[in-house]
Amino acid sequence: MRSLLTKSLLILLLLVNTAYAAADPLPSWNDTIAKKAIITFVDEVTKAGSPHFVPPAERVATFDNDGTLWSEQPLYFPEIFVLDRFKAIASQHPEWQKNPELKAVLDGDLKSVPLDLDVYARAGYTTTEFEQSVKDWATTARHPKTGKLYTEMVYQPMRELLDYLRANGFKTYIVSGGCIDFMRPWTEKAYGIPPEQVVGSSVKMQMEIRDGKPVLVYLPEINFIDDGPGKVIGIEQNIGRRPIMAFGNSDGDLQMLQWTTAGSGPRFALLVHHTDAQREWAYDRTSAIGRLDKALDEAQAKGWTVVDMKKDWKIIYVFQKK
Amino acid sequence: MRSLLTKSLLILLLLVNTAYAAADPLPSWNDTIAKKAIITFVDEVTKAGSPHFVPPAERVATFDNDGTLWSEQPLYFPEIFVLDRFKAIASQHPEWQKNPELKAVLDGDLKSVPLDLDVYARAGYTTTEFEQSVKDWATTARHPKTGKLYTEMVYQPMRELLDYLRANGFKTYIVSGGCIDFMRPWTEKAYGIPPEQVVGSSVKMQMEIRDGKPVLVYLPEINFIDDGPGKVIGIEQNIGRRPIMAFGNSDGDLQMLQWTTAGSGPRFALLVHHTDAQREWAYDRTSAIGRLDKALDEAQAKGWTVVDMKKDWKIIYVFQKK
Repeated sequence: MRSLLTKSLLILLLLVNTAYAAADPLPSWNDTIAKKAIITFVDEVTKAGSPHFVPPAERVATFDNDGTLWSEQPLYFPEIFVLDRFKAIASQHPEWQKNPELKAVLDGDLKSVPLDLDVYARAGYTTTEFEQSVKDWATTARHPKTGKLYTEMVYQPMRELLDYLRANGFKTYIVSGGCIDFMRPWTEKAYGIPPEQVVGSSVKMQMEIRDGKPVLVYLPEINFIDDGPGKVIGIEQNIGRRPIMAFGNSDGDLQMLQWTTAGSGPRFALLVHHTDAQREWAYDRTSAIGRLDKALDEAQAKGWTVVDMKKDWKIIYVFQKK
Repeated sequence: MRSLLTKSLLILLLLVNTAYAAADPLPSWNDTIAKKAIITFVDEVTKAGSPHFVPPAERVATFDNDGTLWSEQPLYFPEIFVLDRFKAIASQHPEWQKNPELKAVLDGDLKSVPLDLDVYARAGYTTTEFEQSVKDWATTARHPKTGKLYTEMVYQPMRELLDYLRANGFKTYIVSGGCIDFMRPWTEKAYGIPPEQVVGSSVKMQMEIRDGKPVLVYLPEINFIDDGPGKVIGIEQNIGRRPIMAFGNSDGDLQMLQWTTAGSGPRFALLVHHTDAQREWAYDRTSAIGRLDKALDEAQAKGWTVVDMKKDWKIIYVFQKK
């Protein structure tokens, strides 16, 4: 029985291997330095006998979300969701009209959006209610510029990269400043990343009994901000392993990239640089959203890979895939 | 190519299936009601075409650690570690002698161990330093009664159960009141559970640069207590899916079992009841450690599975395995 088993397994592996070798794993990437750097690194850490071989269990790759896996203009998409949700449930909260800050938001003043709007928009609601509102939004809300669903504005080259890494034994994680509960309902479909591999900011919650059943209810208090050094803490608390590859696009990702590359053995850090005003947006050092300044300097000093969206990507969005 | 691939895959699956069917997956369990309940449930949720079939991605099983996967007498093992560590580094902290509470512990007064001793025993240390001290302890410290390493006092029947569930496509998680950083260094070897599938209590930390490199340093403040309703919050924040099976042994696990069984579709809850004074310990409703009172009532009322260690387990510890 064993020899038949071994033989079947070998044929299977051979066929799978052949299938992979034949196809370009990153067809939406131009054959520029960024693509070569990724493939060279993945080959080095996965080939048996390579001096830089990394066992599958340690192949952890972390991705920022906003600006790295999907667009983030004209506002971070999680903020757009919060604004939409806030307005949608405002009629249930007449008390908001008495709060000048909240009233300004309801009157359409986007300059004065309070930082804790997300907390107002979910305090007292259950995780189940909130999850449903995210699902509804993800399948109906449309981007003001492209008219596409936000989840259609996922970057096709990054989607291919996620698949490529997983095909090479990597576990792919999102480590985002966005709220964890906002991402989990749609990341599996959009990125192939299951809820348990999403790390993000969070709001405090408590268990209550409602209608005789236990529910989790949000409290009006931020629990954790997963940004900057917080991303390193989020990685430590939720994953408990240091990534060997990390991907970001802004100064909020700098510490995650520093932490990743400070580990021993082979390490890879990449920044997505928004250089394509025509097909996406062009912004970096002075942008209020997704500012890329210190991290760009450090990438240049340390030889991290920087993706030039305009030059390195054949197409931008998953909806442009033929 | 496709037909050869399919054929190889089918032969492989057939052989793997046959191999599993032949062996008893839980050889250290007597053929009592608990074992039958487990196997019946797993069969129901995994067999294709079963009305209770659950897709692999949703097969989440959560396990308490202390008293469920290993012993917890005469003190919770994480507390024994903290005491050992506290004493081992006391010479670096002459200031502790001036604190009456801490001095009492150093003088051997176990009745007055402060709740936040763990915080004292790691504030200012890096995660790397702390991890090393856990590894050293796990491979050298011995239990006062058995003389065995603590990790040898893992329950063999539960070790088999973990393997059995994983062989059936389950993801197995620890959800423990113990500190997450205390468990992760040894759970992969002891249980086959990787660091990213461990949920536990935690201490706050911050990123600092030491010797030019980023490190994570513990702060003197508790971050999260993963016990009672906290276990449900830990599950929500770290896993983001409701378990379909949950395993505990004390009132601290009650909410996790309530949360698990309140989900729709097939659900399974189990309590390990410490009934074996000769081979392990016997305690329940009045014990200061691992009190099992309300959860035992609820298990009886709701028909949850209760393991009678004395009757249901052929052997207790992994070190007794022949």
